[in-house]
Amino acid sequence: MKTRALRCLALLLAGGAFSICAGEALAQAPAPRLMPLPSHLETDDGQFLIDGNINVALEGYTEPRLTLARDRFLATLSRETGIPIRQNGPDRPANLTIKTTGASKPVQELGEDESYHLKVSPAGVQLTAANPLGVLHGLQTFLQLVRITPQGFAAPAVTIDDEPRFGWRGLMLDNGRHFMHMEVIERNLDAMEAVKLNVFHWHISDDQGFRLEIKTYPLLQEKGSNGLYYTQQQVADLIQYARDRGIRVIPEFDMPCHTTSWFAGYPQLASGPGPYKIADHWGVMDSAMDPTRESTFEFLDKFLDEMTALFPDAYFHIGGDECNGKEWNANQKIQAWMRAHNIKDNAALQSHFGARLQKLVAAHHKIMEGWDEVLQPDTPKDVVIQSWRGPTALAAAARQGNRGLLSNGYYIDLNQTAAYHYSSDPLAGDAAKLTGEEKARILGGEATMWSEYVNGENVDSRIWPRTAAIAERLWSPPDVRDVDSMYARLAVISDHLEFYGLNHQSFTRVMLQRMSGESDPKYLAVLASVVQPAEEYQREEFQQNDTSSPLTHMVDAVGPESDTAREFSELVKAMVAGKASPEQWQQARAWLELWRDNDAKLQPSLPRSEITAELVPLSHDLSQVASIGLRALDDLQNHRPANPDLVASNMQLLKAAEKPEAVLRNMIVPPVEALLQASVSH
Amino acid sequence: MKTRALRCLALLLAGGAFSICAGEALAQAPAPRLMPLPSHLETDDGQFLIDGNINVALEGYTEPRLTLARDRFLATLSRETGIPIRQNGPDRPANLTIKTTGASKPVQELGEDESYHLKVSPAGVQLTAANPLGVLHGLQTFLQLVRITPQGFAAPAVTIDDEPRFGWRGLMLDNGRHFMHMEVIERNLDAMEAVKLNVFHWHISDDQGFRLEIKTYPLLQEKGSNGLYYTQQQVADLIQYARDRGIRVIPEFDMPCHTTSWFAGYPQLASGPGPYKIADHWGVMDSAMDPTRESTFEFLDKFLDEMTALFPDAYFHIGGDECNGKEWNANQKIQAWMRAHNIKDNAALQSHFGARLQKLVAAHHKIMEGWDEVLQPDTPKDVVIQSWRGPTALAAAARQGNRGLLSNGYYIDLNQTAAYHYSSDPLAGDAAKLTGEEKARILGGEATMWSEYVNGENVDSRIWPRTAAIAERLWSPPDVRDVDSMYARLAVISDHLEFYGLNHQSFTRVMLQRMSGESDPKYLAVLASVVQPAEEYQREEFQQNDTSSPLTHMVDAVGPESDTAREFSELVKAMVAGKASPEQWQQARAWLELWRDNDAKLQPSLPRSEITAELVPLSHDLSQVASIGLRALDDLQNHRPANPDLVASNMQLLKAAEKPEAVLRNMIVPPVEALLQASVSH
Repeated sequence: MKTRALRCLALLLAGGAFSICAGEALAQAPAPRLMPLPSHLETDDGQFLIDGNINVALEGYTEPRLTLARDRFLATLSRETGIPIRQNGPDRPANLTIKTTGASKPVQELGEDESYHLKVSPAGVQLTAANPLGVLHGLQTFLQLVRITPQGFAAPAVTIDDEPRFGWRGLMLDNGRHFMHMEVIERNLDAMEAVKLNVFHWHISDDQGFRLEIKTYPLLQEKGSNGLYYTQQQVADLIQYARDRGIRVIPEFDMPCHTTSWFAGYPQLASGPGPYKIADHWGVMDSAMDPTRESTFEFLDKFLDEMTALFPDAYFHIGGDECNGKEWNANQKIQAWMRAHNIKDNAALQSHFGARLQKLVAAHHKIMEGWDEVLQPDTPKDVVIQSWRGPTALAAAARQGNRGLLSNGYYIDLNQTAAYHYSSDPLAGDAAKLTGEEKARILGGEATMWSEYVNGENVDSRIWPRTAAIAERLWSPPDVRDVDSMYARLAVISDHLEFYGLNHQSFTRVMLQRMSGESDPKYLAVLASVVQPAEEYQREEFQQNDTSSPLTHMVDAVGPESDTAREFSELVKAMVAGKASPEQWQQARAWLELWRDNDAKLQPSLPRSEITAELVPLSHDLSQVASIGLRALDDLQNHRPANPDLVASNMQLLKAAEKPEAVLRNMIVPPVEALLQASVSH
Repeated sequence: MKTRALRCLALLLAGGAFSICAGEALAQAPAPRLMPLPSHLETDDGQFLIDGNINVALEGYTEPRLTLARDRFLATLSRETGIPIRQNGPDRPANLTIKTTGASKPVQELGEDESYHLKVSPAGVQLTAANPLGVLHGLQTFLQLVRITPQGFAAPAVTIDDEPRFGWRGLMLDNGRHFMHMEVIERNLDAMEAVKLNVFHWHISDDQGFRLEIKTYPLLQEKGSNGLYYTQQQVADLIQYARDRGIRVIPEFDMPCHTTSWFAGYPQLASGPGPYKIADHWGVMDSAMDPTRESTFEFLDKFLDEMTALFPDAYFHIGGDECNGKEWNANQKIQAWMRAHNIKDNAALQSHFGARLQKLVAAHHKIMEGWDEVLQPDTPKDVVIQSWRGPTALAAAARQGNRGLLSNGYYIDLNQTAAYHYSSDPLAGDAAKLTGEEKARILGGEATMWSEYVNGENVDSRIWPRTAAIAERLWSPPDVRDVDSMYARLAVISDHLEFYGLNHQSFTRVMLQRMSGESDPKYLAVLASVVQPAEEYQREEFQQNDTSSPLTHMVDAVGPESDTAREFSELVKAMVAGKASPEQWQQARAWLELWRDNDAKLQPSLPRSEITAELVPLSHDLSQVASIGLRALDDLQNHRPANPDLVASNMQLLKAAEKPEAVLRNMIVPPVEALLQASVSH
């Protein structure tokens, strides 16, 4: 048996630097490309072949969830391999044995044992776990092990002992701003299970929509949504669906601000005079609940009666972010009440609201969770802080005795790279200086999918595959950090997720067809392959910016990170460092020629569509940038001194091309700048 | 207003030969690319712009199906355009008015009025129809009119008066051999509606599976399927789903042969000694019901009680095809009974069975339908004959006074071209010589999707887009025959169908990823783009040939018709005719170089997967064929005399390359042969 330290494995997985793992024999088969990487893995010789007779036995403790998990596992395996799998049955010997010691909690809890032991040998597979949660994780690991080989589909022989680093590994989805059909949410829960995330945080109300049926206050959904909301039956089904996959469901009802949609039906909750209707544009609104009236808390008490019964999880998220205080300032009665109660400013008023709300939540036997702003000096210690502000705020909460989650660094709506998210660690920055006891208060993290600019058609692409990198950060040991390995495995998990029904790879083609009206918009696809949405909040500057704007532009149709541009950047790094192979020089040249020549083919069609007309300058720039790149490549390859004046003027052109067009960044600009720089200095 | 004759329109739609439509001003906008082409269309100036405020009013007769149709129409329009469409409402003026004169029949009938009138102008849209069936068709036509323009999504101004040529326009799906999940069937019904097909013929039992819950005889599904069958509730839902889309559902229970699955639970029905289990391989089986026992007909009588109540359509298909008679020959009691009853041979015995069955079907108030073999001299005149044998058999049925449908020529499981299916006409061949009264007995036709070699993953690709060409043959006037126009519009409808959730375009990429284990198997995709499954029954010669064989090979992963090879053939035709433009010469050369060079890049990866290993010779041949093609192209372009010896040996190589490899035809061989031939004779 060949044991490898995990660090060595990560290097192996990156596909290079094999010799670093000195002193160890290398297995013939490639190392398994798992994500998240397990905490301990040993490889062995041989492999377990998959065929239609695979037979799974459940031993020890059992429950319906395990039977469902087995059936779902076989169905996924069948989709993944295309092999029709015979129904499981006692008529033939089991070759995949699952042994479960006992039950997990009736309502899944934070901190339950999620570990598992998985042994794959040519003769069979053994999976053991303390409870069904570990079984679910182990089955997903097995599915990731399966790949095509010269002998057919097979899982390599391995022994894995695995458990998570953090107990809270979440994905937040905002359906207040954009409603998405249940099937969209379900397939994303499937993908969460695949990468071992265990909390679905459902941001279900916001200024633009209240998306849940409330029986006590039906005007919440009737006036607070455009008819697009979830029924309580759908919610109950989703909670069961999530539980079957080892995922907790925590609702967020954002208060006291982000509440315009509440006021459409119940203006008496508001601090302003109204009338209110659901917001039809994005941004921070002035609307705020009135924390000075008892009737507000009476309403919320009844509201919590209904919601805490519907959502069984021990935690309940009340939001609490982004109050601008304008409605409070403008309301004379509120101002008078504040003076009478010695409340000095709006922060203190919000703190008062939060404290009252916390008592209500606690009275309903739930633990309150809120964004950074919820934390005040007198906040009860059991309140959990979700930090959008960052490690400093998170560490401060932990020092104060509160538990917390990191979301800063995991804002997947902002079109940042997988590498960026991967580098964000809940225990980095200020948190690294915490005591052990304080560090234990950092529960984990959550990726946050805010939905101003996504809908059911493209949301998969914003979540996946990058959230798999975040899942690894939250599950795997902290020294699993190799970015090349991460990207190599991210590509594999991305393909794997296609068999879970996600459209994160296929959506681009369909959207390009729609925007061009062409069956095979290949020149548009070339442009699409090297651009990515401008980061952070630049999308807000786009032409149309309200809730009814179609999300049909190129910025909506490409993923957050251009793989082609990243690969080109890697080539440029190798060329500049003098380490590029002839094939790499040739590949870089072929790409630059493709990009240079694309504009002439693409331009005639762009004005034929209202949607593609905006791409005229971007396409033109791509050609120009590629021409500059080709010249620099020539100079560099031929060791020819570059003309300094030409380099200077070209650098100016490149700097201009850095500026987003149609909210899209041309991602070959930075590597071409590097090429140009190198052509001077070599 | 510019009126164009339809024939002229068809030429316009082919994208060329505009000048043939002499004497008429040409509209600026391209002609609408509809499929099936309507029977009468006039274009006008201007267009109707689509935005989120489109508002549909229902006038005249109404019923829930119309409201559902409107909501479904708006949802499809929203998917097609990406425009979020506000809920329909009386708060703003209607700009799409649907006027329905009256109801259609409670159970949809053959021969109902399906006509509609559609007028699109810049100010609004009017759709009128005699009943909801015409409304459904008109809405689908409108959806096809919508395309992206410089002003946004719009439908061009047109006036359409449309009605079908044949009243029976069907798709048969075989779920006896491969069960498919309900969602697969539903999305294919959506696509049927899109191209105005109106009969879903459900072949639901065969030797390999009895796929329907039967309450009177539960062993039919329990022993007759591998657990994969449809519940009666699912069937009832599907019938409603189909009715909402203007589609009749006709079940087929194939008897007295193709019945092995019946005998697994009820061996007393069989002519052989048994025991029986569901067939695990393909082909014509010996199993046959025993037509000599009264108990057989008592069983079928009760069976029909239940099934004729479940399926409301007036027609009931009893199959009746492919009896080899072996079980009858081997059964002494049957032989004795035949002698006693003066039944001279197996055909007469089957005729006896059919006549008894027909009486039972008629007693249940249904009209019997069956395959060619059902027709005997004394067959009652109301029995409908579905002809797999061809126009001669169909014409014979009509002469005998029976009504009939054509399926010969529409066997979409046999990997023939859209052009081939398009050329098959129910009133061609022998049928063209029928009298008017006899011709009226030809009701239409049905595409038949037999499922030995398709499952839910790739069935869409076998049905679509080719079945849209069959739908046009059955709907549009008989002089709509231009093949170039058909292919141009078929590409458009193929893209359009993607917004109905079909995977007929996207499945290849996923399957290539699976078979290669690579994220971007681009060299494999090059090979895939020029091959197509060998026609007719050659798939039967493949390595594995039973019901549990995975359908994961290249032959399963490519569509039945290579668009790339067809386009290359068109280039070759132009070059050989001396009519190719410089760009066409260049495109042909680029393709040949791509194909020549692909093998060197692809070969190293092929042996890494059990599934791709079989492609080694095919990939090698592609390179060799392309090299020959390049040489011939050079000779032709440079007017250089070809070396006769080399041409002769190359032609031998090409002839050898015509032979399928891994059941795949290399579709550039025929055009390269044409090039080589031309390089000699020019």
